[in-house]
Amino acid sequence: MPKFDANGLLTGVAVDIAGGEVLMVAYLNEEALAKTQETGFAHFYSRSRGKLWMKGETSGHVLRVQEILVDCDQDAIVMKVVPEGPACHTGAPNCFYRKLENGRLLPRSQ
Amino acid sequence: MPKFDANGLLTGVAVDIAGGEVLMVAYLNEEALAKTQETGFAHFYSRSRGKLWMKGETSGHVLRVQEILVDCDQDAIVMKVVPEGPACHTGAPNCFYRKLENGRLLPRSQ
Repeated sequence: MPKFDANGLLTGVAVDIAGGEVLMVAYLNEEALAKTQETGFAHFYSRSRGKLWMKGETSGHVLRVQEILVDCDQDAIVMKVVPEGPACHTGAPNCFYRKLENGRLLPRSQ
Repeated sequence: MPKFDANGLLTGVAVDIAGGEVLMVAYLNEEALAKTQETGFAHFYSRSRGKLWMKGETSGHVLRVQEILVDCDQDAIVMKVVPEGPACHTGAPNCFYRKLENGRLLPRSQ
């Protein structure tokens, strides 16, 4: 079973099941993982706000979870998802819309 | 620029540039990120061992980093890599070789 760290969290990577693109990285506590499994929608735990949230609860841009993969040491998961709308709160299709090159953040061609 | 959390770390997701598969998730401190950029090989910071390491330093299964993507809030990166050999220390092609289904960890068909 997944293992939670000293802060009660594990790392979650949401991947578009269609294109294979990494959409976002966020963290789950035990409740977030349980809710994700119960509802089929990705839930996370916000470290900054200190609360559980469902991705898309305000924007409507939910992530439908098709499969949950667990890594060798069981402290990270990959969620294969079908995104409804852009996955990033900025409106970008995913959160990784910039690249680091020569110490600068540059737009990434997608 | 990437931002490091209270523990001086950011989350790193290594993705196979060819197949798009998530290979592994690990953490980087500032030195690990600098070494990754300098050498072109993925470096991480081991939270359990409390030290910098180069992925593959003992196994030879290095990850050649082609591109580093940074997320919206700059505390997670995706490294697009060319893996030399299996990425997981278990010998699996990647660390996500099991799926979570009905509360059980099952082998995943890849």
